[in-house]
Amino acid sequence: FGSQAPVTATLFPGDGIGPEIAEAVQKIFKAAEAPIEWDVQLIGKEVDPRTISYVTRENLDSVLKHRIGLKGPMATPIGKGFRSLNLTLRKELGLYANVRPCLSIPGYKTRYDNVNLVTIRENTEGEYSGLEHEVVPGVVESLKIITRVASTRVAEFAFDYARKNGRKKVTAVHKANIMKLADGLFIKCCREVSEKYPEIEYDEMIVDNTCMQIVTRPSQFDVMCMPNLYGDIISDLCAGLIGGLGLTPSGNIGAGGLALMEAVHGTAPDITGKDLANPTALLLSGVMMLRHLQMNEYATRIEKACLGTIAEGKVLTRDLGGRSKCSEFTSAIIDNLDD
Amino acid sequence: FGSQAPVTATLFPGDGIGPEIAEAVQKIFKAAEAPIEWDVQLIGKEVDPRTISYVTRENLDSVLKHRIGLKGPMATPIGKGFRSLNLTLRKELGLYANVRPCLSIPGYKTRYDNVNLVTIRENTEGEYSGLEHEVVPGVVESLKIITRVASTRVAEFAFDYARKNGRKKVTAVHKANIMKLADGLFIKCCREVSEKYPEIEYDEMIVDNTCMQIVTRPSQFDVMCMPNLYGDIISDLCAGLIGGLGLTPSGNIGAGGLALMEAVHGTAPDITGKDLANPTALLLSGVMMLRHLQMNEYATRIEKACLGTIAEGKVLTRDLGGRSKCSEFTSAIIDNLDD
Ligand SMILES: CC(C)[C@H](C(=O)O)[C@@H](O)C(=O)O
Ligand SMILES: CC(C)[C@H](C(=O)O)[C@@H](O)C(=O)O
Repeated sequence: FGSQAPVTATLFPGDGIGPEIAEAVQKIFKAAEAPIEWDVQLIGKEVDPRTISYVTRENLDSVLKHRIGLKGPMATPIGKGFRSLNLTLRKELGLYANVRPCLSIPGYKTRYDNVNLVTIRENTEGEYSGLEHEVVPGVVESLKIITRVASTRVAEFAFDYARKNGRKKVTAVHKANIMKLADGLFIKCCREVSEKYPEIEYDEMIVDNTCMQIVTRPSQFDVMCMPNLYGDIISDLCAGLIGGLGLTPSGNIGAGGLALMEAVHGTAPDITGKDLANPTALLLSGVMMLRHLQMNEYATRIEKACLGTIAEGKVLTRDLGGRSKCSEFTSAIIDNLDD
Repeated sequence: FGSQAPVTATLFPGDGIGPEIAEAVQKIFKAAEAPIEWDVQLIGKEVDPRTISYVTRENLDSVLKHRIGLKGPMATPIGKGFRSLNLTLRKELGLYANVRPCLSIPGYKTRYDNVNLVTIRENTEGEYSGLEHEVVPGVVESLKIITRVASTRVAEFAFDYARKNGRKKVTAVHKANIMKLADGLFIKCCREVSEKYPEIEYDEMIVDNTCMQIVTRPSQFDVMCMPNLYGDIISDLCAGLIGGLGLTPSGNIGAGGLALMEAVHGTAPDITGKDLANPTALLLSGVMMLRHLQMNEYATRIEKACLGTIAEGKVLTRDLGGRSKCSEFTSAIIDNLDD
């Protein structure tokens, strides 16, 4: 402990409860002596013509420079002529894989025990191409794009992830019985990549059946790899099994290991500024960030304190069934940090 | 009872366990004196050039003539140059809406109690257009088509269904934050239709959040209306809450009330011919068929006997945790028919 050189990471506090939970994370990181220095980045107050988004060129440059970042929830202002903040970040930073480990939180009771799976989502194409047009009035075409390059890249990421994390199986999720060419290409790429990882089991499952299996027998899944929209749906579905987006960390990974971890829950305008927010998703995303930086001791230290505080059940925020403030929950986590 | 003129309905026993469960349904209908005569239709043994499918012209004509049918599971043979049997039926018969009531089965324990919702799926377009091509090697485009006509038609069906069945709310499920034009058109149509049904509450929910909400708080849903693929996914997901496709009835509705009800589970080749199959999904689809024909007393009689047999828990097939044969379960249902 304490011997590692500090690393600078970009921090986007984001909107709504974002600044409150980002402050909580910074306090806990400091108390844990995690060797992180934060480059705090605020999203612009108007559209940056260089990015066609409220995300500014400086915001992007900060992540590109540090190659690591942590992001709170962001609200895309309503209106036309600019891009979603989340999508701008993914696109401009080339964050091609979204990773969501989904593990039951000991002591936090839901209908499901012992969930332990990871969804890996292709993050750049598919149904998110943005290519749509009205062919004639009342007839809209929307293009789903699947490419060999992006499918192979995310499949390689999934198998690498499985190997590095000691996981046993990768399941490719698809609807190739209907989208024979598009999803057919996706699973073909997964299948090809799987041959380079003989120690990892590989199988394929149709998306509708997958969702049914997730709610009946989630323990059959390990690592799951899928096109963009199925990943969007299934990662939220899985989060639901363990208690929702407030408890689920997420990471977006790009070329050369560039990584932006994020809390994927909303900005919660109803409780903003009231010291009531739960910082867990952002904190556990920070833990993912530390692991990504090979700072495993710090990661484990913070994770244990966070999960320990939840398991004790004495100091909990309201969404977790408690009556404590965000700041009290934060202090309890700090008190639970091992020496 | 007994005064109604008999109606002829098409019956597709289907493949695998299909004939066994179809026989069970026929026996129970007969014992209940339901005034149905069956026109049993077998799918062709080779591709019918008139339909480019194993579904023959005669198969289609039977449903078009009787305007009502019941269908067991069908296995589309593997190979090229012909269409999926299920999709051929939907397309050629113009079955534009798929309806799946999803209700907890009393006495059959799952992680969820008191589920009571209905999914209504647009059945003809969306991601199922079949329009795909490889733009250059390694780049595939797949077209999702959303039209005003089909969206309005299914929305009207959903609101009519809600009104007729005393349901209070319709939720349109979409991803219009990403597919702004396509899903945007879908919800616009739903919104327009909703204005003609002031007594029915209307809301909209994004598909990823919907899936999370379904597994955390399913009781918030009533009738749900959605494009084809989301319907495919969400109807299976909901079936998972109450015990799977073996317990869930389904109906496909076309113009002028033409209806083909179906068991949507698989053909179960592993237990075919062993008298082990569970006929519940097909039987409850038959009950839907009777209700569609306004034969409500017969419908209720058969439904009560089926659910009563499951609730008693004495004579159950293996998938339900029992040790009885399909024929024994069938006899138990017949014994439970009220006079
Ligand atoms: C906010 C929205 C654009 C986003 C998505 O659809 O990808 C969100 O649901 C997510 O999963 O990060
Ligand atoms: C078998 C398959 C083509 C079908 C579909 O995708 O519609 C099935 O999943 C269903 O829901 O009836």
